[in-house]
This record gives sequence, structure tokens and C-alpha cells, in this order.
Amino acid sequence: MENLRFADPSHIRQMIREGKLQTHTSGMCDGYAQGNLVVLPKNLAYDFLLFTQRNPKPCPVLEITDLGCKEFKSIAPGSDITTDIPKYRVYKNGKLEEESTDIKSFWRDDFVSFILGCSFTFESALIEEGIEVRHITYGKNVPMYITTIPCKEAGIFSGPTVVSMRPMSPHQVIKAVQITSRYPSIHGAPIHIGDPSSIGINDIHKPDFGDSIDIKKGEIPVFWACGVTPQAVAMNVKPEIMITHAPGHMFITDIKNHELAVI
Amino acid sequence: MENLRFADPSHIRQMIREGKLQTHTSGMCDGYAQGNLVVLPKNLAYDFLLFTQRNPKPCPVLEITDLGCKEFKSIAPGSDITTDIPKYRVYKNGKLEEESTDIKSFWRDDFVSFILGCSFTFESALIEEGIEVRHITYGKNVPMYITTIPCKEAGIFSGPTVVSMRPMSPHQVIKAVQITSRYPSIHGAPIHIGDPSSIGINDIHKPDFGDSIDIKKGEIPVFWACGVTPQAVAMNVKPEIMITHAPGHMFITDIKNHELAVI
Repeated sequence: MENLRFADPSHIRQMIREGKLQTHTSGMCDGYAQGNLVVLPKNLAYDFLLFTQRNPKPCPVLEITDLGCKEFKSIAPGSDITTDIPKYRVYKNGKLEEESTDIKSFWRDDFVSFILGCSFTFESALIEEGIEVRHITYGKNVPMYITTIPCKEAGIFSGPTVVSMRPMSPHQVIKAVQITSRYPSIHGAPIHIGDPSSIGINDIHKPDFGDSIDIKKGEIPVFWACGVTPQAVAMNVKPEIMITHAPGHMFITDIKNHELAVI
Repeated sequence: MENLRFADPSHIRQMIREGKLQTHTSGMCDGYAQGNLVVLPKNLAYDFLLFTQRNPKPCPVLEITDLGCKEFKSIAPGSDITTDIPKYRVYKNGKLEEESTDIKSFWRDDFVSFILGCSFTFESALIEEGIEVRHITYGKNVPMYITTIPCKEAGIFSGPTVVSMRPMSPHQVIKAVQITSRYPSIHGAPIHIGDPSSIGINDIHKPDFGDSIDIKKGEIPVFWACGVTPQAVAMNVKPEIMITHAPGHMFITDIKNHELAVI
């Protein structure tokens, strides 16, 4: 695994393309940003793009392809969207149709593809600054919750904001706000700190997605807007077809995490 | 003028709507963000939105309306795009057709309206921190230059980045980078410092737009991506119709400048 940790993103994408690597991508290509994939037909792309523009904290866009183009030219030159992710999910009319290691047979010339920033980036920044990220320590998935904070509507897209939660000491909360504020294109600063019920979370130990994580005495739960939001919102609309990555099986970009920091 | 400086944005928009105020908006509603207007037909809006997404430094979007909607619901509730700017410019097929104090007679239900962030916001932040903004001191317009830095293309839209220039002492440059980095939605950090020729500016004393400004001994020219870029790029395409604000006659939002800071 160590060689994957320090591998070049284009090398890993090539291995995935050739079917030599089909695992989740956590821990690969240390220091490089990974992203969430959403592929939609052109007739939905404008509303979805407008939705991401109106809701930049849950929906931070790293790149959008040209119509029908299979390459993320800016963040991953030479990439092929149809093959370079280890596992895809194909949804039809809002239902999971199948999981697949490539989407060559599903590809259409009217597709537009979005890569959205992923919290892996700010988590690695937190860890570098000495802040424990609890779910990583315990090898679990981050706990995620559907809140009562509405997203701003855009055309046919609307829905609640989904958040991820990381518990921290008060001192770490201050540092974490500073660190993640530098990454507005990766969810940015937290959107809530403290009382879960004030954003509609009734039981912090029963996340809607991911795993429950202990909050130790004296710790404060910190909530960030989560990249599950745009997928959940797109799914609400039951598009005739939508393709995403499978959870944890991300698109690895050529962009260094620190390039995404604004300060 | 003092009463306009401390007036509420909605009050000023109302005065403009009633034809009681037809001047440029510089200095009005101290502390509130002002913005650039671009109105385009729906068939160009997707490509233009994609262009702003790919070029966030010259094209920082504050809000995009729903199709045919005349109100910026988020940044200026109750506003009316057709009346709330003191002076508009109507372009047809890339040529200035007329200037007008309202656009009621031009309005179409297939219009989409964009408000783009304006450097007034970061200039007021610079001044608050004690940095002289030379062109303001001398009551001139900021000098702007067409560079050799290409924007990323999006559909039919492409063109060079336009920059604005402010001369500063080395110490002020450092501070100005820190301050403007906090405002990624208002052009963000500078895109170049120093030698004008390396970004294709042959004569710093002959700006392409605005006024020439003295650079004193020991000062360094600092260049920011400029909101003229998206208008120039949109114009290149010679759209059948495009409506903008007239220079200096901006849309005044209800958003406080400091709300746009990420840190």
C-alpha cells in the first residue's frame, strides 16, 4: 500500500483504467485532492450547475467537463471519466441500477461530468496540523446527518443540507475553523458547532450515513457541509440516468491539496 | 452625499427605481458589496455560467437569477433588475445600442441575470487596513490592462484575462495579499506582482481601460483579475442581446463586504 500512498495520480488512474486496482482510494496519492463524481445528461446540467453555484459549501466544484467530453482537462490531463474510477454507481430514475468498474457501455454524448471537492483534502490538512480526526483514528466512515438547513433551490433541484461531524476539544475547534477556512473550494469553514438539535439532528449517535463516532467529555461536535448533499439532491429528482463514483472510490486529481488553499 | 454613504441599500435601490438618483454609485452604502450586472438570454447562460465557474478569479459570481426572474432574491430581496441600477448599457450583436436608466422595455422572459463581485469590496478592505489605493486618492478610475493570460474556455466563450493594477510598497504588497486572499468571491489574491511585461503589458502608463496611475520609486505594481473580463469575453461572442450596468453605476446589494470574507 505504501507505494500507492506516494504514487503519482496519473499512474494510479492508469492502473485503475487497466483493471489492476479496484479498491477504495483512501490513502492513495498522499497530498493530492480526490473528488466526487456526478454525471448527468445535458438537459439537467444547467440546473445542477446553478445549484452548485448557489450552494458552494456543500457543492464545491473542482471541474466541469465540456459536453460529451470524457476528460477532466484541467485537474487531470489525460484522464478518462469512463474508466479511471475503481467503482461506479449507475442510477436510473432514482434507483441504483448497477455497480460497475467502468461506464464505457453507458456513455452518451450528451453527458456533462462534475468533480466536486471531497473532505479528504481538509482532513489531511487537519491531521498535518496535529488535530485528531476521530473516525480516521478508528478506521470508520465519517458520520453524516440530514439537517433542517435547506439548500437554496435551483430549477428542479432542492433539498436539505447534509453535514459530516468531527468531535474536537474547544482549542482544536478554533484551529480547525482557521484551517478549513483556507479551503473554500473543499467545503470551507464549518457551518455549525455544538448543539446538534438546533440543526435538526435528534440523535447524534444515529447518523443518516456513515458510522457513529464517540464524542468524549469536553468535546464539541463540529459540522461541515458534506459532499453527499449534491448526490442526494440530484437523486431526489429521479433523473432518467445519473452516474456517480461508489462511496470511497474517488476520482484522484493531479491537484495538490495545498493548491486549493486560498491563504 | 453623506446620507447616501450611510444609507440602507434597499432605500437607495428604491430611489434609483423612482428615478430620483441617476449618478454613479461609488461611495454609496458604506460597507455593502456592489456588483457588476450581466444579462444574457438563456441559450447563452449555460456556457457563461460554466465560464464563470472555470474562471472564478476574474468572474466571481455573487448571484444568478432563475430564468426570467427580475429579483436577486438572495443578495437583494425585493430588488428589481429592470429598474434598480442608475444606468444600463444595452448591447446588440456586440455593439452598444443605447444607454438607459431602466430596461423595462427590453425585458424578456428568457433572460438570466448575473451579479459579479466588484473590486470596490476589497478596496474598502485595503483602505480600512491603512493601505493607500492610489487611484481613489487621486479620484481616478483604476488602470486596467488586457494581458496574455488566457481564460479557460467554456463553450462559445473565450478570451484574455483583464487585470486591474494598484501600486504599493513591498510591505503593503504583503498585507494586500493577506487581505484580498480573504475574499475569494471578490477576485481573491493578486494574480501577478511586479514586471508588467511578463503578463503581456508593454506600457504600464497606457492602460487599455481606466486611467494611468503613477508608480512611485520603490513601489511594486500589483495586478488583480478584473471584472471587466467577463463583459469583454461575453462581448467577443457578439450575442444578439446583452445588457450590463454602465461603468461605475453598480448594483448595490444587501450583503456586507465582511460577509464575503472566508477568514
